[in-house]
Amino acid sequence: MKSFAATKGCFQKDGKPYVVVSGEIHYFRLDPDLWERHLVLLKRAGANTTSTYVPWDWHEYEENRFDFSGETDPARNLLRYIELCRKVGLHLIVKPGPYILAEYELHGLPGWLLKRCSKDALAVDEHGTIISPDVMSYLSEEFLRYAFLWYDRIMPIVAQHQYSRGGPIAMMQVCNEVGVFQWLSGRIDYHPSVLKLYRQFLGEKYGVVDNLNGVYGTAYGSFDDVLAPRGSIGSRPEYRAYYDFHLFYRHYFAVYLDTLVKRIRAYGVDLQLTHNIPGWIYGQASELPMLISTYEEVMRGRTDIVFGLDHIPEFVSFRNAHSDLACNKILEAIQPYGPVWAAEFQAGTREHHVKNDANDMAMFYVASLAHGLKSWNYYMFSQGINPKGKGFFGKTFYFQTPLNARAEKSPLYRVTKGHADLVHHEGNDIVLSETKADICVGLYLPYFYTELTLSQMLKEQRFHIEALGLSLDPKFIREEIFFNGLLRGLQTLNYGYDIRDLETTPTDSLLRYKQLWVVTAELMDADTQKLLATYVKSGGHLVLYPAVPTLDTYLHPCTVLKDELMLKFEKSSSPNKIEAFGIEDIFTVSREKFVFQASDKEAVAWTEVGEVCGVRKQVERGWITALGCAFGYSTDEHLELYKKIVSLERIKKGAMVSDPDVQFVVRRGKRHSYLFLLNYHNEKKTFTVGSRHFTLAPLSGKVVKRKNGHASW
Amino acid sequence: MKSFAATKGCFQKDGKPYVVVSGEIHYFRLDPDLWERHLVLLKRAGANTTSTYVPWDWHEYEENRFDFSGETDPARNLLRYIELCRKVGLHLIVKPGPYILAEYELHGLPGWLLKRCSKDALAVDEHGTIISPDVMSYLSEEFLRYAFLWYDRIMPIVAQHQYSRGGPIAMMQVCNEVGVFQWLSGRIDYHPSVLKLYRQFLGEKYGVVDNLNGVYGTAYGSFDDVLAPRGSIGSRPEYRAYYDFHLFYRHYFAVYLDTLVKRIRAYGVDLQLTHNIPGWIYGQASELPMLISTYEEVMRGRTDIVFGLDHIPEFVSFRNAHSDLACNKILEAIQPYGPVWAAEFQAGTREHHVKNDANDMAMFYVASLAHGLKSWNYYMFSQGINPKGKGFFGKTFYFQTPLNARAEKSPLYRVTKGHADLVHHEGNDIVLSETKADICVGLYLPYFYTELTLSQMLKEQRFHIEALGLSLDPKFIREEIFFNGLLRGLQTLNYGYDIRDLETTPTDSLLRYKQLWVVTAELMDADTQKLLATYVKSGGHLVLYPAVPTLDTYLHPCTVLKDELMLKFEKSSSPNKIEAFGIEDIFTVSREKFVFQASDKEAVAWTEVGEVCGVRKQVERGWITALGCAFGYSTDEHLELYKKIVSLERIKKGAMVSDPDVQFVVRRGKRHSYLFLLNYHNEKKTFTVGSRHFTLAPLSGKVVKRKNGHASW
Repeated sequence: MKSFAATKGCFQKDGKPYVVVSGEIHYFRLDPDLWERHLVLLKRAGANTTSTYVPWDWHEYEENRFDFSGETDPARNLLRYIELCRKVGLHLIVKPGPYILAEYELHGLPGWLLKRCSKDALAVDEHGTIISPDVMSYLSEEFLRYAFLWYDRIMPIVAQHQYSRGGPIAMMQVCNEVGVFQWLSGRIDYHPSVLKLYRQFLGEKYGVVDNLNGVYGTAYGSFDDVLAPRGSIGSRPEYRAYYDFHLFYRHYFAVYLDTLVKRIRAYGVDLQLTHNIPGWIYGQASELPMLISTYEEVMRGRTDIVFGLDHIPEFVSFRNAHSDLACNKILEAIQPYGPVWAAEFQAGTREHHVKNDANDMAMFYVASLAHGLKSWNYYMFSQGINPKGKGFFGKTFYFQTPLNARAEKSPLYRVTKGHADLVHHEGNDIVLSETKADICVGLYLPYFYTELTLSQMLKEQRFHIEALGLSLDPKFIREEIFFNGLLRGLQTLNYGYDIRDLETTPTDSLLRYKQLWVVTAELMDADTQKLLATYVKSGGHLVLYPAVPTLDTYLHPCTVLKDELMLKFEKSSSPNKIEAFGIEDIFTVSREKFVFQASDKEAVAWTEVGEVCGVRKQVERGWITALGCAFGYSTDEHLELYKKIVSLERIKKGAMVSDPDVQFVVRRGKRHSYLFLLNYHNEKKTFTVGSRHFTLAPLSGKVVKRKNGHASW
Repeated sequence: MKSFAATKGCFQKDGKPYVVVSGEIHYFRLDPDLWERHLVLLKRAGANTTSTYVPWDWHEYEENRFDFSGETDPARNLLRYIELCRKVGLHLIVKPGPYILAEYELHGLPGWLLKRCSKDALAVDEHGTIISPDVMSYLSEEFLRYAFLWYDRIMPIVAQHQYSRGGPIAMMQVCNEVGVFQWLSGRIDYHPSVLKLYRQFLGEKYGVVDNLNGVYGTAYGSFDDVLAPRGSIGSRPEYRAYYDFHLFYRHYFAVYLDTLVKRIRAYGVDLQLTHNIPGWIYGQASELPMLISTYEEVMRGRTDIVFGLDHIPEFVSFRNAHSDLACNKILEAIQPYGPVWAAEFQAGTREHHVKNDANDMAMFYVASLAHGLKSWNYYMFSQGINPKGKGFFGKTFYFQTPLNARAEKSPLYRVTKGHADLVHHEGNDIVLSETKADICVGLYLPYFYTELTLSQMLKEQRFHIEALGLSLDPKFIREEIFFNGLLRGLQTLNYGYDIRDLETTPTDSLLRYKQLWVVTAELMDADTQKLLATYVKSGGHLVLYPAVPTLDTYLHPCTVLKDELMLKFEKSSSPNKIEAFGIEDIFTVSREKFVFQASDKEAVAWTEVGEVCGVRKQVERGWITALGCAFGYSTDEHLELYKKIVSLERIKKGAMVSDPDVQFVVRRGKRHSYLFLLNYHNEKKTFTVGSRHFTLAPLSGKVVKRKNGHASW
């Protein structure tokens, strides 16, 4: 039985682990005479798969006029392209939309469709204004009707050439970056189909409307009376409604994807499905986890769609070295049923202000292996030239790709080939190798529910903590304290960590770690508070900061954790800098702090006015270390503080590397142990690992291996 | 006669050109036993000057208790430090505040001062709320009184050791980054002393209040009735008031600096004065020109304060390679009386998320010479360790500096020494060399008057173009179309350019250039419009886009340019992409365009619906090329378009370099012609210049020279 599927930790082909090494090539942007040459060169670079969008607009070039065999234009001969993939010996990932984006005019929707559809098909903002003439509302009846007419034609072709029937198509992506328009524009879709689903969602969640009234503090007569939240949050009831609205949007995306999947299956398509998650902006990935969270209902509810990350770092530097690891770990935490894979893995660049030099990418590719990437799709492998009028940004699609549009090699081609050689030489053992961590970092997704109220691109922020009597901004906490602070600090110090989803992980799994770090805001649901308390009492060591939650996620009092761990504190204001664990002058980001009532023995941190802003104490069989102040990673003292707290447990690093500027990761494969050495600095590094001498060129990485069973590094 | 002064194009010492090669060392952050060692090593690195803040808080450690000779702490022995500079043979730049910032607690203000001053001394926002307990209002009587008591003690010491009296002090900075708090917080100071000056300013500008009423469209009975603008701009009268408020803020800063300077001179201090301008953010300098503009009244009104730029690129890359050149050219345009110098020239980094690898800096330093930097102060040359409680961010002040706090050399030390060797080997000829450009880019400062309404850090933007019936956002225009578009594009194409201030440059000076490019918004004053029209009629070639102004800066109709050049157009909306000069599918940023009535012969650009959105025509002795659409530099087509327009005139590049990825600059010195070759890519480049072969390592620059009189490169 021929099968291709995502499973925990890897893809499997015919039941055996399989590493997808793919390159994105857009046949519709290339001279058909060169199609085979591009594919052959991709194959020769060591890839086993290619990936492409199949633009609706390109193949349904007029309403109800389809071309898949090149009658109107040889570049529309999808059937020939699929056959070429088979002939060359590459698997194919197809991405037939309906939306493809891909810098294709109208995001891949046919031009005629926009004229054909009434305005009822379009997404509208809170004032009923059309958001954009090319942004359809996903569940609008009109949009889905046309999309399914497209599916009627394309899906039988996909089914016919799918892997189970001996064809080259191994995987299919459903739509593209669902929700990206709302994220980018910061404008919520209030289409009637959305609002209808919203009221259903509330009905299912609360059963009777008085339950909702009890939580919100409202007096609605029925669910039909509930208005979707809009505008700024001025009160706690408004906040509560937005909290549910974020949950609902996760449900909405799940329903949309489910609607497409049900239809797709009806055509006999049995492929592994996938979807991609965007999110690096300006070389930063601190917002990507928020975007991962928007698919949490899908990931928690089904396993047939495996999500891949768009890893487009834009530049490779010590400054963003933590980003890919952190996102990989977060995806793994929410999607345990599939491998961490990069649906778009930077190779080339869309715009002239992003650079993609081959040397930089060589470094990033090695780092990606170190950071647990299990499969990837070079985006783009081949440059394209847009058909006239079809390119959103102009004629040329991507620069600095391994192959240009004429199928000529750039310096990056050699890099991709070298990377595949490394992987294949080890028979995938290096890719499927694993890390072991003593430190667990807790992930609490409700802190990420802000894309509707604090969006990156939103001009008018809808959420201000002051209006709710809070002192910690969740976006700042998760980006600067959690992502760019803790996760970056641990990595800089070469402490391995895992991430676990606090809402789905049982205490036992957490107790496998010597420490659990949880970066908190002032709110947390009772179950999670209980979990953390139980973890401590059962023998764990919980490190909690910068707040002790005293509210649940609906801002009702909830002091389970505080009560169970017998923490006594109040808010207080003092100069930013504190002393903790004997480290003086540690910069914290705010004058607002939690100060504790604690014995001298328990106190571990002090404000400049002598208040205790950190405690460490035993509770039953475990320990709690709680700090009432926010710190990220900007100065030496922060690294010292992370190190100090980690050293409270016997946590060992994976190797003894003499230069603290060199980052390293130890991975254990079936046969070998691999030591990844990474130099994120534009300076040559000479150092020792144990007694062996090493040199790393500026901005480069290398891997050394050793048979399992030998001494540690 | 011993003299040290800024003059056009360079500093002069005793009447001869002098290149300041300075390194910032903070004696108050170092062990006094190591002071001499730091200074000696700076000198050995080829520097001739050192620079330091003199923190008010450090020396007036309690109210009216001063220490300049180390009685209370040897690190307060400023007199000894000055003497050491003299002994080692270094000039000294002192920066005694009152504000110093410098990550010193309370920005260098004494802790006791904040307790001593009443709230009347503090800056307040539009609601009368104190902006921050450490932000004084510059002209408040209380703040100035205390500042002058500080001056009473420090200025005589400065005067005693100044260069004219044989001392090492060669220059003094007055205060630090004036206006930076308002810029960073986006909060305007509405202190009574500010508002009083504002009404005086209006009185002097308008004479009688009816003149103001005529411009604003208001009905004030007297200047005392005029309220300072606050909140969002909802109407044209509100816009007009903010326009004047921006002008006033420029006046306010000028008055503050003048107040300090008058006092300083009274102590017999005859030093060249200086001030520094901040502004790179996250590796981007596109906002720096706005900050330069906030000092325009000072620069246009006096020549005894020479402004230096804070050049802190954070990283060195093709992505920001245009930034330092553009800022240097802009400063030169507004400050023709002084050299372009870097008051802070990156060496080391304040935070762990910025990297400052020696190889990167080596590249940046060479590029800075190519880009016309005439003097610089490495910031920081030596790391510091903050006295307890004095460091805003903690103990350690700066990382990756040439010397650490123990006076040990880092790899960057060798780089600074090598750079000084290059400069000194040429006897300064390489620094004082000049470029020649055929292209002039017009600078129009009113487009930069947005820091009070569209500040980078302002949460609620006060200015929305829609409310005023405009279609072009001036901040977007100047940052993405002008700075990151045109200036970056010209540099990428290796076309040299100069920048000229359109408000102060006569037609004759503009006519020296073959082309004048002016990036426009919808507004421009009548005089400047007239200047541009005259330039065309006198034989110039004006390239104007994306708008033809039809309003003056107060949004009253003003069509001088349109009328004189006989341009006929209206606004229209169409898909983004256009065709121009035979180049298809050029991406423009907006659907809104200006479409022209033009003959077939005159039309040069078309929208997708066939409207003419660009014209080129002769008017009297010259040419106007006007495009009615906004484009920056993100794709190949934009480069093609710049190239095409430039090629309308006989504009030559300075050298024939075979690899278009290599940037180059030709500079002419007194004896030699220098060719700077710059590789901003992390890839080795091999290429020819004429018939000579060259290799550049990844991310590196080199200089080759040739005696004047030889053939061109």
